[in-house]
Amino acid sequence: MTGTTDTTRPAPLAGVKIIEISAFVAAPLGSMTLAQLGADVIRIDPLGGNIDATRWPITEEGTSIYWASLNKGKRSITLDLKSEEGQAIATELIAEAGTLITNLPARGWLSYDNLVAHRPDLVMLRLSGTHDGKPAVDYTVNAASGFPTITGSDEKPVNHALPAWDVIAGMYIANGILAAELERRSSGTGQEINLALADAMLATVGNLGYIAEIQTNGSTRGPLGNGLYGAYGQSFTTSDGREVMVAVISNRHWRSLGTATGLTDKLAMIGDLLDVDLGTEGGRFEAREAIDAVLRPWFAAHTAAESTAALAEAGVLQGEFQTFEELVRDDPQCSSANPLFSEIEQPGIGRVLAPRVPLTFHGSPAAPASPAPSLGENTDAVLAEVLGRTADDLTTLRERGILSD
Amino acid sequence: MTGTTDTTRPAPLAGVKIIEISAFVAAPLGSMTLAQLGADVIRIDPLGGNIDATRWPITEEGTSIYWASLNKGKRSITLDLKSEEGQAIATELIAEAGTLITNLPARGWLSYDNLVAHRPDLVMLRLSGTHDGKPAVDYTVNAASGFPTITGSDEKPVNHALPAWDVIAGMYIANGILAAELERRSSGTGQEINLALADAMLATVGNLGYIAEIQTNGSTRGPLGNGLYGAYGQSFTTSDGREVMVAVISNRHWRSLGTATGLTDKLAMIGDLLDVDLGTEGGRFEAREAIDAVLRPWFAAHTAAESTAALAEAGVLQGEFQTFEELVRDDPQCSSANPLFSEIEQPGIGRVLAPRVPLTFHGSPAAPASPAPSLGENTDAVLAEVLGRTADDLTTLRERGILSD
Repeated sequence: MTGTTDTTRPAPLAGVKIIEISAFVAAPLGSMTLAQLGADVIRIDPLGGNIDATRWPITEEGTSIYWASLNKGKRSITLDLKSEEGQAIATELIAEAGTLITNLPARGWLSYDNLVAHRPDLVMLRLSGTHDGKPAVDYTVNAASGFPTITGSDEKPVNHALPAWDVIAGMYIANGILAAELERRSSGTGQEINLALADAMLATVGNLGYIAEIQTNGSTRGPLGNGLYGAYGQSFTTSDGREVMVAVISNRHWRSLGTATGLTDKLAMIGDLLDVDLGTEGGRFEAREAIDAVLRPWFAAHTAAESTAALAEAGVLQGEFQTFEELVRDDPQCSSANPLFSEIEQPGIGRVLAPRVPLTFHGSPAAPASPAPSLGENTDAVLAEVLGRTADDLTTLRERGILSD
Repeated sequence: MTGTTDTTRPAPLAGVKIIEISAFVAAPLGSMTLAQLGADVIRIDPLGGNIDATRWPITEEGTSIYWASLNKGKRSITLDLKSEEGQAIATELIAEAGTLITNLPARGWLSYDNLVAHRPDLVMLRLSGTHDGKPAVDYTVNAASGFPTITGSDEKPVNHALPAWDVIAGMYIANGILAAELERRSSGTGQEINLALADAMLATVGNLGYIAEIQTNGSTRGPLGNGLYGAYGQSFTTSDGREVMVAVISNRHWRSLGTATGLTDKLAMIGDLLDVDLGTEGGRFEAREAIDAVLRPWFAAHTAAESTAALAEAGVLQGEFQTFEELVRDDPQCSSANPLFSEIEQPGIGRVLAPRVPLTFHGSPAAPASPAPSLGENTDAVLAEVLGRTADDLTTLRERGILSD
């Protein structure tokens, strides 16, 4: 590490302008990631807000914490997107910015063919459900993925609570825009990019080996509860009723687990007992039930604090399960002691801890987290600054109902 | 959509060369994503392979399907990285490539300060466990995230089977390299970038609103089984014993659900019954138990095929849960009918279906999936091509044990 961070160079995406017309998690997260890398992201919503404007969680007064969390550091404008005049203004903004991210069907005025006529080197990324145009959301994509059938302990599928496919798709969106921007700077030419949420899932399933595993070995793993596949790992209940997760990846971890628990000799017996090589990840996976049985009483006899201290000192990978409340209230990683976070004043919500992009650039640092705008907050400023609209122009647009009062 | 794809323009990252020295999921996935976008990624492993070389799943003969799936489209070289001579060759390669991705501690010869002396505009991204240098892996980061405590139906934490934090961190790695590459092309200067796996988790928890929710409302949601939070969604068992997922996001979806099931009138009664506004996502979430109770008999009286057909025709978001086996064998999305996939011949594994990057670039298309190299397959070719080593040089290096036989 260099030790010092150069704060004079602009953020990596300084000077890049992006229009977003989207809702929910994936596309807003993709463009927020680019905003956090320094891009000027202008989110255009219909008058009154898009379908996610009041999404839960909300405050007691009804402000969407969800919306605010996924739109940090953007500018927000609202237009009557059903009117030709509103569409024309949005088209002008897209042409000026040169980059568009959307999860709308991209037909008519929002089609690539129409927009590229206004901005020849346009980069436009559209998120869809499936590659062949069917609707899909995180929950339906997840059902198809196979993962719910190996999550938990029994045969009934269990959804993960994390909207993982939306988050992964959001990251792919940022990657797609960055790659196309790089390419445009060499070629001078833009392009249309498509991403299907279902394809982000399918690519991940393939990249993690599940497809080839079935094609090669004929089947895959069943549900393993909190156990790891292909290595040793398990969760245990401690004497004070907490749950801790232990993961053994390397042989060093395995030796450390024996040292920390004083169970080296008993653990070693399992090799002969089951005729497995405990010096391999696969061997430890095969012996997992016996290892569980040897370790469980040790955890049941120690508090979470005791077991955590002993395992950490020996260098075993371990972690205590915690609720979101515990994470936010007690974990120093989730506090302004972690440079990831800063306290921001979020309009309508209050003072909250907010993350910047988790990448730390030592040369051209990304800015700390900044609040989300309120809906339509930047309409006048953006139309004046980007499109040169005068105060009179804005009044006229407002009278005609293209802008909100 | 343009309809046609220009196949004459090179892939977005053509001409970019990246060295990877890493293992497991996140860093290999990050650099594989860049390889799939067109970069020339050279993975350097120690002689005999890194700690992930034989990771499960494996074939009957012991070839790692895991490794092959996470290293598609890269080149592989092996060096004695413990020797000064091996380190010097790796340093030369890093200096030539100009970009390094690693999850090693980056001390000594692999420190940024040392490497930048050999390549002044170096971009180097290092993945660590936590921002303050503690070890962490997906499983321990997940335990701390809060998500296991709301996954499944009861109070005991349930790990998701998807290594979501590793995948998300891999995507952030690709974003970090792309952003720094863009910045370098303007500034002429490289930089060091750090990413902590724990920070990728914490940023996601914050971006999804969980931190602000607790700070504002004092608490968050408990486990909801397969139910959605803040909207209506649930899984149901059909008459043929299948499980299907239903998600209602918009008011149109809600009306469609009534139409598809013929239960519009009964569903409408729930509003008065519970004094909630079923025209809002929040209202439907509050009424979820009553909605479940009205819908459950309908699913129990229909087969999965019948319910899927009825719901799809009405435009309800729904999907049948399937195993990985069913996904691979029966789902046309997971076949070469989907342009995401192609059949590749993977050495040591055989003919398998493999995904390219899920982004479809209509101007500068990313290549179809290509196989992973076998370990060390490209050692001689890379040292000759990138560093100009002659056949005699390679023989000498081999005799001294710097290269494998």
